[in-house]
Amino acid sequence: MSTTRQIHLVRRPQGAPVAEDFAVVDADLAEAGEGEVLLQAVLLSVDPYMRPRLNADQPLGAPLLGGGIARVVQSRHATLREGDLVRHGAGMQERFVSDGRGLRVLKADPDLPLSVYMHALGGTGITAYGGLLETGALKDGEQVFVSTAGGAVGSVAAQIAKIKGCYVVGSTGSAEKAAWLRDVAGLDAVINYKAEALAPALKAATPKGIDVYFENVGGAHLDAALPRMNLRGRIPVCGMISTYNGGGEGVRNLSALIYSRVRMEGFVASDFGHLNERFEAEMTGWLKGGQVKYQETILQGFERAPEGLIGLFEGRNAGKMLIAVAD
Amino acid sequence: MSTTRQIHLVRRPQGAPVAEDFAVVDADLAEAGEGEVLLQAVLLSVDPYMRPRLNADQPLGAPLLGGGIARVVQSRHATLREGDLVRHGAGMQERFVSDGRGLRVLKADPDLPLSVYMHALGGTGITAYGGLLETGALKDGEQVFVSTAGGAVGSVAAQIAKIKGCYVVGSTGSAEKAAWLRDVAGLDAVINYKAEALAPALKAATPKGIDVYFENVGGAHLDAALPRMNLRGRIPVCGMISTYNGGGEGVRNLSALIYSRVRMEGFVASDFGHLNERFEAEMTGWLKGGQVKYQETILQGFERAPEGLIGLFEGRNAGKMLIAVAD
Repeated sequence: MSTTRQIHLVRRPQGAPVAEDFAVVDADLAEAGEGEVLLQAVLLSVDPYMRPRLNADQPLGAPLLGGGIARVVQSRHATLREGDLVRHGAGMQERFVSDGRGLRVLKADPDLPLSVYMHALGGTGITAYGGLLETGALKDGEQVFVSTAGGAVGSVAAQIAKIKGCYVVGSTGSAEKAAWLRDVAGLDAVINYKAEALAPALKAATPKGIDVYFENVGGAHLDAALPRMNLRGRIPVCGMISTYNGGGEGVRNLSALIYSRVRMEGFVASDFGHLNERFEAEMTGWLKGGQVKYQETILQGFERAPEGLIGLFEGRNAGKMLIAVAD
Repeated sequence: MSTTRQIHLVRRPQGAPVAEDFAVVDADLAEAGEGEVLLQAVLLSVDPYMRPRLNADQPLGAPLLGGGIARVVQSRHATLREGDLVRHGAGMQERFVSDGRGLRVLKADPDLPLSVYMHALGGTGITAYGGLLETGALKDGEQVFVSTAGGAVGSVAAQIAKIKGCYVVGSTGSAEKAAWLRDVAGLDAVINYKAEALAPALKAATPKGIDVYFENVGGAHLDAALPRMNLRGRIPVCGMISTYNGGGEGVRNLSALIYSRVRMEGFVASDFGHLNERFEAEMTGWLKGGQVKYQETILQGFERAPEGLIGLFEGRNAGKMLIAVAD
């Protein structure tokens, strides 16, 4: 019997999560039994969607729900071998034992850094891909607005729209992210909503209206976008980060849905399993060809996972926020 | 040259429209020229959707935009004959001359009162039919919530859902309308939102959640419905009467769209022209068979059109509000 570390939720956050809501806890770790593997966490993901779960299905005193990439360090399993990399949803544990259920072996392309499998080629990437192309039914050359375009999902959605020949406007909350979106990602217009009034800036930036609004924010962002929606426009709803910590503004312009016959529809990454093969092939090509660029904010050390999650709501990430646990 | 009367908008309403925003105006009326007809208004429609137009595309000092049923009283037209009834969109004029464009001859069933062609068999009827069955993609036996179920559109939508074997909950703002919906229209549950708190009442009335919310109100109604939506539920958005006079509450629960993958989509009656033939056949049968019941509030006299429109926002109509101008 050895020990491992886990990140626990120890109380329900009120508003924005704070360090005291979490604890790093030592836990017993059994040996891998017959048919089991012992896994070492390599990379962990922290994502905005984790926030609402902290007041819902996340148990207190148990590992934070989540996933990442781990390496098999000991195997008594029929097909999994020592050294294999796997994707898992086993939550925030430094090492853990598994019977293999819920693990998916990861065949990483040696020409790409492993971390891209946690964002552009991972859950946030297929969220952007499926949300934009399937839920949003994007057509080549349309007018597109992406909120939190500097984030892990938004930055991929905005660049896929550019690849499809669209006119793309992004919003973001810092001058640094705005510069990256304009100069590196190549968006047509970028709005720093902390530096300028969103609604008039969006109006000026969308002279031909908006066909697809990729929605990550809700509240004032949605109210600014609704009057700009074109006939039969679509609003794929990926997230509403403005509402996750409670409070925020109510949305007042929804009647714009009626005359413009706008369709607004929620989705989650797991809706797009049927797109996975096409997504992986296309995204691998776009990454290698430099058509999709990315930023990462990688915190070193398992114990920094709460800091990473908290930082998401303070905009401390550029692109995808990751926790690096081991090489 | 003779004269006619018109209803004009003389100033833009601020908030709820009042009598002083309108005027009954005498206007010159030419004879019907070659290829033209002279028409006498029979019934005029007033509808909630007219309110936002008063601050948008409705010109000042011109007949109120709208439509109704008129009778040809003089014809120099090739196909329209004296005595023909027509549907028109010529606005609020007592008599008027037309070259026939925009007129559709009405073949009224002699076993039905003419007034039903202004609601259940008219624009509000096909709005309910298309919004529920096409935009809402209603399936037999689903869980349905209809707001302002006592109104001209809502009452038809709720009864079509009953015909399709659904469990149907309606909301309305008076005890009289609630009684009609329960006892005459046969809804499964009725909420008088002026007499009880909407959100807990809706939760109690929808133990199996909501598959389709037929949205006429917005604001607090939408916030009450969103947390009750089932996986892949639909919210066809017909109207948002709570917002039309300005003010109203912002909507705070839109993030429920995400995890339940709810689709919310606006529509207007003119989207459903392709359904017209099927709609007229089915609705005629439902009306004759007593499966769709209706209420009407008919004001006698052309000059009462502004009173009718104003009354809509004070809930003074039971079912469809009409203005009877001539027999």
